[in-house]
Amino acid sequence: MAKSIDRLVHELAKLPGVGEKTALRYALAIMRKEPQYARELADSILQAREGMQLCSECFAFTERDPCSLCADTRRDQRLICVVEEPADLLAVERTGVFRGQYHVLHGALSPLEGIGPDQLKITELLRRLEKNAVAELVIATNMNVEGEATALYLMRLFRPLGIKVTRLSSGIPVGGDLEYVDTTTLSRAFEERYPLE
Amino acid sequence: MAKSIDRLVHELAKLPGVGEKTALRYALAIMRKEPQYARELADSILQAREGMQLCSECFAFTERDPCSLCADTRRDQRLICVVEEPADLLAVERTGVFRGQYHVLHGALSPLEGIGPDQLKITELLRRLEKNAVAELVIATNMNVEGEATALYLMRLFRPLGIKVTRLSSGIPVGGDLEYVDTTTLSRAFEERYPLE
Repeated sequence: MAKSIDRLVHELAKLPGVGEKTALRYALAIMRKEPQYARELADSILQAREGMQLCSECFAFTERDPCSLCADTRRDQRLICVVEEPADLLAVERTGVFRGQYHVLHGALSPLEGIGPDQLKITELLRRLEKNAVAELVIATNMNVEGEATALYLMRLFRPLGIKVTRLSSGIPVGGDLEYVDTTTLSRAFEERYPLE
Repeated sequence: MAKSIDRLVHELAKLPGVGEKTALRYALAIMRKEPQYARELADSILQAREGMQLCSECFAFTERDPCSLCADTRRDQRLICVVEEPADLLAVERTGVFRGQYHVLHGALSPLEGIGPDQLKITELLRRLEKNAVAELVIATNMNVEGEATALYLMRLFRPLGIKVTRLSSGIPVGGDLEYVDTTTLSRAFEERYPLE
């Protein structure tokens, strides 16, 4: 196979979840399409990467600082939803139920990987809370060990400051069939059961 | 979300098997990595696409014409393995069992999609056979309706010219458990059973 395709496969294989085989499939697809596509793709990569910065308020990716969400005065400034990654922010935003501000931590606490509070945007969150009157922090970190540890850490840090700290509920997915729910989720659903009214 | 990321997601979603969600995951990964990665990736796409052409002999992707496989005089010139796509050529080449030449059809017959013999590199294959003394054509098209139809078409076209036309065997995959083999494959394995010697 041509060296230039090898190089392209090598670069594509650095994307998350992309192995050599998938990378080769993508590379061959790029070869098969009209040359215009390769130029568009390459240009969109450069444009996106070079025009991109972190919002100095919430640390989401943005082309303008502050980002459109932070600049939107119709959104509730007293509510901050804390997420691990920009992709999580987009997931919450898609639901349309949250009309407050966001804060992207850019990771979760993970002592094994050497990720402590200093590696996350936690000092920046503290500073935001000092500057603005925030009533509630909604912790929307992932439902895994790292996400849970991060939620606990944030709760212990912010509750003494008189800020209400809440956590997204976990349990059986809507539409989920009990039979196919994993035992950990099912156990959690039992622990977090609530009275029907 | 920033417009430039939207555009990148849109372009990435044109890759095979990549939906909006996966494209967004790739886009955010590109944003998270050092800017050098975006430059390397964009450059490798352009380099690969612009330096690439089809080999005038076998129609594989190549940077030089003829390609390294066609130029390799140690390979048996009297054997041609016919595949649908460049990726299939690579799959056969990985086995290391075939030491002849290749011919890439760039598709398979599919009347429903309007793909007839003229859309494939079949005239080019005929011309190769007129020019060179070819003893055997190994048809390695896919084991689906289109691949089978293409194999049959090529057999009917080339057998009258006195060329031996063979087809890769189909049946139970090596290491395959009979219990989990689909019924079509199992039926085929019965039809194509051979005497043990």
